[in-house]
Amino acid sequence: MSQGPGDSGLDLNRQDRASAVAYEWAQRTFANRKGRAGLPILGTGGFFANLMDFPGTVISMTSDGIGTKAELAERTGIYRTLGFDLMAMVVDDLVAVGCEPVNVTNILDVDTVDPSVVDELMHGLHEAAAVARVAVVGGEIAELGDRIGGWGDGMHFNWCATAIGILPAGRSPLDGRLVAAGDAVVALRSDGFRSNGFSLVRRVMAATFGADWHREPCEASTWGGVLLTPSRIYAPLVVDLATEGVAISGVVHVTGGGVPGNLARLLRPNGLGADLGTLFPPHSFMREVMQRGGVPPEQAYRLWNMGNGMLLTMPPGQVGPCLAAAEARGYPARVAGTITPDPAIVLHTEDGSELAFPGGRR
Amino acid sequence: MSQGPGDSGLDLNRQDRASAVAYEWAQRTFANRKGRAGLPILGTGGFFANLMDFPGTVISMTSDGIGTKAELAERTGIYRTLGFDLMAMVVDDLVAVGCEPVNVTNILDVDTVDPSVVDELMHGLHEAAAVARVAVVGGEIAELGDRIGGWGDGMHFNWCATAIGILPAGRSPLDGRLVAAGDAVVALRSDGFRSNGFSLVRRVMAATFGADWHREPCEASTWGGVLLTPSRIYAPLVVDLATEGVAISGVVHVTGGGVPGNLARLLRPNGLGADLGTLFPPHSFMREVMQRGGVPPEQAYRLWNMGNGMLLTMPPGQVGPCLAAAEARGYPARVAGTITPDPAIVLHTEDGSELAFPGGRR
Repeated sequence: MSQGPGDSGLDLNRQDRASAVAYEWAQRTFANRKGRAGLPILGTGGFFANLMDFPGTVISMTSDGIGTKAELAERTGIYRTLGFDLMAMVVDDLVAVGCEPVNVTNILDVDTVDPSVVDELMHGLHEAAAVARVAVVGGEIAELGDRIGGWGDGMHFNWCATAIGILPAGRSPLDGRLVAAGDAVVALRSDGFRSNGFSLVRRVMAATFGADWHREPCEASTWGGVLLTPSRIYAPLVVDLATEGVAISGVVHVTGGGVPGNLARLLRPNGLGADLGTLFPPHSFMREVMQRGGVPPEQAYRLWNMGNGMLLTMPPGQVGPCLAAAEARGYPARVAGTITPDPAIVLHTEDGSELAFPGGRR
Repeated sequence: MSQGPGDSGLDLNRQDRASAVAYEWAQRTFANRKGRAGLPILGTGGFFANLMDFPGTVISMTSDGIGTKAELAERTGIYRTLGFDLMAMVVDDLVAVGCEPVNVTNILDVDTVDPSVVDELMHGLHEAAAVARVAVVGGEIAELGDRIGGWGDGMHFNWCATAIGILPAGRSPLDGRLVAAGDAVVALRSDGFRSNGFSLVRRVMAATFGADWHREPCEASTWGGVLLTPSRIYAPLVVDLATEGVAISGVVHVTGGGVPGNLARLLRPNGLGADLGTLFPPHSFMREVMQRGGVPPEQAYRLWNMGNGMLLTMPPGQVGPCLAAAEARGYPARVAGTITPDPAIVLHTEDGSELAFPGGRR
């Protein structure tokens, strides 16, 4: 169970407690598949239980939603790109455990359905599916009246999805046990906040510009347009890298919890750390949100991706082919640092400060 | 794509249009898996596309939620049973295509999380998972603030799930092509409204009793308690019937659309109909909702399950073993009628009236 969006304005302890409770109940159900197809495969500490053993095939299944980013579509009237955010959230979680995403279903909860908005949302999901190379095999539109709220007039909605993927035959799950001290960390550029940490972003915007903050100019667009920036889908690149024989030892999808929160999970099995001196810098609009909200860097790096949507770890000899393959496919990538035997995650930010977070202590 | 809850107060045409739009976009993504694992298997009319072909294994994947039944938990303070509703919605859809449910993930959208309520919800889901014999392999709790609404104080939430199942080796999908004229229709008793048609139920209740309708007495309980009645999970019975060699030709999970809406889908491939003279009668509280709301029988049977949560079709010789197996497991079951060559669905209700609906016209 992942926790909710890391947001300093929310009570993370309460969220953590709720997630822990949910995970504990879920774990007790694993025995229901003992000796049967679909038995969860337990990794170290039970962390990779969403791998399931089918006859001859290992499958992963993950569910997530776009959170309050839906409000950006309501504010801008642009609904076509959220499918990329939704798709990215689930398929990029699958490649993070070493699986190839295969099929997706989605649930759209609406107050009152507007078919033209649904058309735009699903059109975008279809475009994202082509990028992710998955089939959308099911969906549900639930009209829930005043159980759904949102911004302004028009259809309000919350949108979530589930994806399943397969572990290619003969491949090991990327559960952190392949990661070694000395491995290089390659960062993949993000284009924006993806779908995480929007509760705080929205609060900062409202405090700064007032209720109609989305109309305020930002770069060549508006704050609404910039914050809506669709998520880059990393899955096809990661699948291709593996297919081409690039020996990736770990994949980190930087979602709620930011770089240190998500990287620590990968480092835990082997008790490792990381020294990251050359991450991509945060986008200027990310820095502006930090400054206007008075969000210190320690917190920003735990809430948002800060320009780095995915990290790949690999033996140093794999870096060349990895960067070449990424460049050939139009994914900005760079070496961001190395894996260390010391179990701390140290980030050197562009302003020269050094941020230390707990690494993969066992 | 299924449509939203069949509710006479909603614009079904608008919902149908939205669902059709969503399904069309989804179908265009199937080509993304051509020649690869997870290719959707197209049945007649594209209806059973949520079967996917994996190497050596056919899998089904389905997503659904409990709709506005969540409000009943908020009104009564009883959160422990909704897991049975959520589980039933997804696993009973899987056995309806001939698959054995295996794994489930869930997404809980909340305004502000209350760990003690989450504990009750997940405890119930865990109990339902044991009944359904599935493992809960993932979940997400998303704190969405005022994007989520509900009744009274306390945590408000919407809850959905995705389940995957496998088609047992050598078994055909139950896509309607095995159904034959002369087959018996066996009805499985429902205990209440399951998770469908609650928007209308709630409207009738509010119009009859006012805002605090859930406190009004009903049978030995209150309306709140009676309407919260958890869904019976049919999946384990259906799996056991197949395992024991009962030759079931079709399974209908009676959700939104009621008996005729869901049965018609099964009858379409072979252009058949059904004559149903001995369905279970609606529960007395269902009749009371009909009467108080002025809902005519034609509409009631298209909105609600009316006491029959699942229908099984089979050659007449299979009825004996089927009823015996159901009784042994505590599932009330009875012969409800027969499959006819005439493509109309005719229901004879207990008050002697005859309701005709379109059957499986190709």
